[in-house]
Amino acid sequence: MFHHSSKLQYKVRVDRPDPQFAKYLQQAIGGIEGEIRVAMQYFFQAMGARGDSKYRDMLMMTATEELSHIEFLGHAVALNLENAPLTAQEEAAQDPVVHAIMGGANPRHILSSGLSAMPVNANGVPFDMSHVYATGNIGADMLANVTAEAGGRVLASRLYNMTDDAGMKDMLSFLIARDTMHQQQWLAVIEELGGMQNALPIPNSTPEAHEATEHSYYFLNTSLDEPTPEGRWTSGPSLDGRSEFSVREKVEPLGQKPDLGKARPNSGAQTEQQ
Amino acid sequence: MFHHSSKLQYKVRVDRPDPQFAKYLQQAIGGIEGEIRVAMQYFFQAMGARGDSKYRDMLMMTATEELSHIEFLGHAVALNLENAPLTAQEEAAQDPVVHAIMGGANPRHILSSGLSAMPVNANGVPFDMSHVYATGNIGADMLANVTAEAGGRVLASRLYNMTDDAGMKDMLSFLIARDTMHQQQWLAVIEELGGMQNALPIPNSTPEAHEATEHSYYFLNTSLDEPTPEGRWTSGPSLDGRSEFSVREKVEPLGQKPDLGKARPNSGAQTEQQ
Amino acid sequence: MFHHSSKLQYKVRVDRPDPQFAKYLQQAIGGIEGEIRVAMQYFFQAMGARGDSKYRDMLMMTATEELSHIEFLGHAVALNLENAPLTAQEEAAQDPVVHAIMGGANPRHILSSGLSAMPVNANGVPFDMSHVYATGNIGADMLANVTAEAGGRVLASRLYNMTDDAGMKDMLSFLIARDTMHQQQWLAVIEELGGMQNALPIPNSTPEAHEATEHSYYFLNTSLDEPTPEGRWTSGPSLDGRSEFSVREKVEPLGQKPDLGKARPNSGAQTEQQ
Amino acid sequence: MFHHSSKLQYKVRVDRPDPQFAKYLQQAIGGIEGEIRVAMQYFFQAMGARGDSKYRDMLMMTATEELSHIEFLGHAVALNLENAPLTAQEEAAQDPVVHAIMGGANPRHILSSGLSAMPVNANGVPFDMSHVYATGNIGADMLANVTAEAGGRVLASRLYNMTDDAGMKDMLSFLIARDTMHQQQWLAVIEELGGMQNALPIPNSTPEAHEATEHSYYFLNTSLDEPTPEGRWTSGPSLDGRSEFSVREKVEPLGQKPDLGKARPNSGAQTEQQ
Amino acid sequence: MFHHSSKLQYKVRVDRPDPQFAKYLQQAIGGIEGEIRVAMQYFFQAMGARGDSKYRDMLMMTATEELSHIEFLGHAVALNLENAPLTAQEEAAQDPVVHAIMGGANPRHILSSGLSAMPVNANGVPFDMSHVYATGNIGADMLANVTAEAGGRVLASRLYNMTDDAGMKDMLSFLIARDTMHQQQWLAVIEELGGMQNALPIPNSTPEAHEATEHSYYFLNTSLDEPTPEGRWTSGPSLDGRSEFSVREKVEPLGQKPDLGKARPNSGAQTEQQ
Amino acid sequence: MFHHSSKLQYKVRVDRPDPQFAKYLQQAIGGIEGEIRVAMQYFFQAMGARGDSKYRDMLMMTATEELSHIEFLGHAVALNLENAPLTAQEEAAQDPVVHAIMGGANPRHILSSGLSAMPVNANGVPFDMSHVYATGNIGADMLANVTAEAGGRVLASRLYNMTDDAGMKDMLSFLIARDTMHQQQWLAVIEELGGMQNALPIPNSTPEAHEATEHSYYFLNTSLDEPTPEGRWTSGPSLDGRSEFSVREKVEPLGQKPDLGKARPNSGAQTEQQ
Repeated sequence: MFHHSSKLQYKVRVDRPDPQFAKYLQQAIGGIEGEIRVAMQYFFQAMGARGDSKYRDMLMMTATEELSHIEFLGHAVALNLENAPLTAQEEAAQDPVVHAIMGGANPRHILSSGLSAMPVNANGVPFDMSHVYATGNIGADMLANVTAEAGGRVLASRLYNMTDDAGMKDMLSFLIARDTMHQQQWLAVIEELGGMQNALPIPNSTPEAHEATEHSYYFLNTSLDEPTPEGRWTSGPSLDGRSEFSVREKVEPLGQKPDLGKARPNSGAQTEQQ
Repeated sequence: MFHHSSKLQYKVRVDRPDPQFAKYLQQAIGGIEGEIRVAMQYFFQAMGARGDSKYRDMLMMTATEELSHIEFLGHAVALNLENAPLTAQEEAAQDPVVHAIMGGANPRHILSSGLSAMPVNANGVPFDMSHVYATGNIGADMLANVTAEAGGRVLASRLYNMTDDAGMKDMLSFLIARDTMHQQQWLAVIEELGGMQNALPIPNSTPEAHEATEHSYYFLNTSLDEPTPEGRWTSGPSLDGRSEFSVREKVEPLGQKPDLGKARPNSGAQTEQQ
Repeated sequence: MFHHSSKLQYKVRVDRPDPQFAKYLQQAIGGIEGEIRVAMQYFFQAMGARGDSKYRDMLMMTATEELSHIEFLGHAVALNLENAPLTAQEEAAQDPVVHAIMGGANPRHILSSGLSAMPVNANGVPFDMSHVYATGNIGADMLANVTAEAGGRVLASRLYNMTDDAGMKDMLSFLIARDTMHQQQWLAVIEELGGMQNALPIPNSTPEAHEATEHSYYFLNTSLDEPTPEGRWTSGPSLDGRSEFSVREKVEPLGQKPDLGKARPNSGAQTEQQ
Repeated sequence: MFHHSSKLQYKVRVDRPDPQFAKYLQQAIGGIEGEIRVAMQYFFQAMGARGDSKYRDMLMMTATEELSHIEFLGHAVALNLENAPLTAQEEAAQDPVVHAIMGGANPRHILSSGLSAMPVNANGVPFDMSHVYATGNIGADMLANVTAEAGGRVLASRLYNMTDDAGMKDMLSFLIARDTMHQQQWLAVIEELGGMQNALPIPNSTPEAHEATEHSYYFLNTSLDEPTPEGRWTSGPSLDGRSEFSVREKVEPLGQKPDLGKARPNSGAQTEQQ
Repeated sequence: MFHHSSKLQYKVRVDRPDPQFAKYLQQAIGGIEGEIRVAMQYFFQAMGARGDSKYRDMLMMTATEELSHIEFLGHAVALNLENAPLTAQEEAAQDPVVHAIMGGANPRHILSSGLSAMPVNANGVPFDMSHVYATGNIGADMLANVTAEAGGRVLASRLYNMTDDAGMKDMLSFLIARDTMHQQQWLAVIEELGGMQNALPIPNSTPEAHEATEHSYYFLNTSLDEPTPEGRWTSGPSLDGRSEFSVREKVEPLGQKPDLGKARPNSGAQTEQQ
Repeated sequence: MFHHSSKLQYKVRVDRPDPQFAKYLQQAIGGIEGEIRVAMQYFFQAMGARGDSKYRDMLMMTATEELSHIEFLGHAVALNLENAPLTAQEEAAQDPVVHAIMGGANPRHILSSGLSAMPVNANGVPFDMSHVYATGNIGADMLANVTAEAGGRVLASRLYNMTDDAGMKDMLSFLIARDTMHQQQWLAVIEELGGMQNALPIPNSTPEAHEATEHSYYFLNTSLDEPTPEGRWTSGPSLDGRSEFSVREKVEPLGQKPDLGKARPNSGAQTEQQ
């Protein structure tokens, strides 16, 4: 069960409201790199967690933290919109630079939300929940979480660069920090479960008899003119410790030329196809 | 530039066509765990790759392989649909079990595609390209790729279990194998670039001055009644080697109670809000 | 800031797991009538609330409650999926009725989530955040909330009818009850702010000079052959107390026949259009 | 059956074409507050209407009117796009303010539609029909309709403020007026059916035995530190006349700590979860 | 301006209600081959039509007809849902075949719409307006319209086959007939404007100087092992009468190997990429 | 099976990087008129092709070419983003015109992709695969393909006009040329199969007994005040050679007034509807 306390997890201050930066910040709320995504992803993973219950607890605790991130970011968007022009007269009173900024603002911050945050990204595209990755496999889920936090910290760093408002920089430095921790805590779960070697290949419960292992450890060079890019993946022991990496170049297809024959009657095809 | 040869990368055989399994297979084509996603993800990452060009080459080569996976899976869907009833008469001639199976089939395999594969998932929801994760940061991208392949192998393993058609099992064992390799090859890039410790936190180029590092290494227990789940993430050196993990429980919010004051005139609010 | 406690807001018991009912329940999680929607809608309205801060508090408190509803519904979905067949062998061992039920299940509950809840509706379509209605106008927002809760209680009642599992009926009777309260609490806000007459027309802050009031109070019968359906809306005082209702039938259009003339050069039209 | 006459329902005049305002107007066509939504919502409600047929007639008549609103708004968008630059040369000839305006225009008005309206919102996001709310319950449907019209009039008022073109202001004053009527006509249906008290809780046909009425009339304060916001919803008779409002604070969860146990074999989980 | 008359354009009769066929029929309402699509497509094309106004009139007249098609199809869906079970008890009373049918029904026809039509396709995916193709180019638009009607008639024919209800067959035979006409009327516009030769290449207003005509008339064989499929497109005069068709096989790429160099500082890339 | 060679199909040069034009170019990658769409459309049509296999080969060959178009357009987007400002300082150093341009850029080109192409359109809306039209009917599919290429060439022509960068104009002239060919090659398939007269009505395999042919050849004038627009479609032989065109004006509806009666108990309707 969830509870709420009235203060924000972190302080939000905007020294110079900027409607264009409000639009940018939306990416951190409703973008695929944003907080709605991680809050919901950890929440749904927690609800489906099987095995040692401490991972369920951990997921739910951080899901709860991410809800608090949505909250202070939402406040930051509203503060950045404080002085946005609401009438043609107000807008006309401004200089060309302000015009440019309004051209780069999200019009729905005025038309739809009345100067507050929306669950959309920086293009105004609403977040959709297909981005909540929760497979029931703790290895796959932890990787999805590190990925989300990596994307999140890349975004927060770019937002930090795109503003020179001291309040916004301070808030973003907190987000950058929490993303640092969250990247590591999900990787730490993998480490605790025996490390990447033990986790791979995910799922590690697939019986080897279900796998055509003769195809499991070669890098396939599908290029007609490029040499194989040599690296850790072309030779040496595989990362799961089960085999050796190798390379296949200029391979012949292993399958047939596909042919579906004629169309069946009543299938809605043209007569010529039957 | 892309080229094509006429045979499938891997042979496809269906011993007993099953329209319900055709619906299930769609998840491997148009699901978030599917082949369109990885093909397009690696393709767009390749097009945006900066730094050592060998990673660009590697991405493009595997993108090309994934296009071939779409192709043989698409053929497998069509073969599973070969005998699906196209008229009420045909359907009525079947026994209740067949009815049940048709109830569980995707009606658009008859109504829209005429017995062939579609770029949709097992619920008939079309794939959308927001799932192509490509950040321009090679660390974040590699993690996104391992995640995609982990989800893919989980899916292929589940599909393997859900059929007893020998041809389908053979094809899926090939997919399981290739997903094994692909998981490892993206992790191998991280290893080659100095390993996870060097890569973290992603992006590793963010200046430390941009980060409120006093918030970077504690696990936040947001629960009112659960003890902190202890593990690798609660003490010991952080995975990036820069600090020590710790825990914060029953923390006080660091921010203010948010207050946006009254609504501005002309903002479309009710009079009582102004 | 959000917090969590470890027990569910309400107890969840499933006497006879039913994968088809798990699919139905998804509508209450990820449908437009579901709990993700109201949780996020109240949350975003709270973040944008201006005027008397008690409404912000109220919105945030109920948003928090709705998060708890997602949580126990998610658990109910997982419990309904407990015994779903995971292999072709298990499924084949079942009788035609079970087959029918599996045909009516969501295949992604097996293939994608590994027997747990997803943020999708009963058709497997992911929830998207465009359904979070938050206008910054407290009248419009309260109506949107009553609407959401009305839809929610209609859905919960239908779900109650579609199961005969005592545990599920008990849980749904709780949801029905809370939706009763939530419908009323949002309407009570309108009552407290002077009632519907004062609130209308929304926004009540629009200056009368911005409105062509000669068009504000007539019902327009656009039918060629149906008489006007008489009712409270065709005569008597308008609900905002500002005027009298009337009717217009067989009206003449008030505008021009539209004509955009020829296409401009360089506009990508056919030559014949220029 | 539908028919058409050649003139617009209301006259459209644009004195000073403005491509940025064309983008803003799109919200009134293809936004969730727009005319496609209400036209389709009333149309689908009418098609599903059961009970007294006069409500079906009323819905269809207003659906038909809303189609006419799409039509004149679509003409307004095209007129606002009349002089938009179609070549780099034309654009370069303009001053910085015009540049700013073009930066704020929808590029697809040039690239995709050739200077005419599209069924998208002000961010260019296409309208999707999940926003057509039609439940088969007349109470829920009428509330959904008032909500839609409240959102529509908020939007039209904001658009009115954002332009100083006399023609556009005139057209929007007509829209504001019709939204006034439409808000009231749907509420009048509820009044005619016995008023809000009789309608609540929606659906009013749910047997009381299906409801855990001990949970139906308390406001739940989920905050850890905020006092309950007192109001019409915390004491006094409930709006449905069946009970009294009360408050619950610092409540204990009523349910169990959820626990799904171990993962089943063949479920695609990691071995450690089994 | 639109008007309505109370009777359906065509009679609708359902002899044996079938909830599964109700789901199938949804494809003709809310599918990409369905009536919402063509109604809206012709409507938006009409609103953007420039050039001879008779094409605008024609588009609006047929848009209006398509709205009437939605209406009778919507009624057909509701009639097919008349006897669908609304409670677990009703459903349990039925035999396995009925169970199978309910497994194949759209659960939202019970849960969300209360036994009536929805603006979704046969998978329950809502129609979205990105499928309204309207370019401002009459050639491109007419082709889009023939395409839509071809898809529509393919669908109607398949639906005709999938039912043995005489009423439904009758209604579908009317739809098949109207799609016949609509396919031809859009092609007739092209014929009237000089025929396909004159219309091609679309847009025919693009100055030849904007086109690298040396690349305009060869078929590119991108296969490594398949001979060029010979046909009307490999030799002989081009369909626009401007040139001769030819073939290119095993072509060399004309461009460079792409290289974006190093990542810029502050771009959020990993240090190793800079 | 697919293969790749390292050079681009066509050379890409950008003389003056322009982030706003990068946004415009996205329409040609991820728009409905773009290259992802045609690549995937031809690919899925090929995988479902039945009848003479040469059409399958042709589809796959051109699908492969379109993948190469994505590739060089993706490079063009990245080159246009080369100098985009990445920090507030860089941006502030620029003049108002540059500001305007940045206001018109896609912020996610900085925030999400790190200066490279994304699978989205010019509004930042991700491409979704519902636009892959593949019916299994070669006539419908060929028309869908001509339509796609017509839209593509209209777009490419408009993009050509909107830039004065010589490199971009050169690249677009190549795209315009290839779209010329592709329009014709799909029409040539129809010609080879007997021409439009033989292909119509699509599907030409629908038995005439399934069609209410008395409704197949009249143009329906649904206007109340407009005369029928006379043309090739109002008289003379039909394009399929089976009949004569005629006109119907001021037609009476052929169907009943729809009436669904009362709502059933347990259907979630209001009591008043039962």
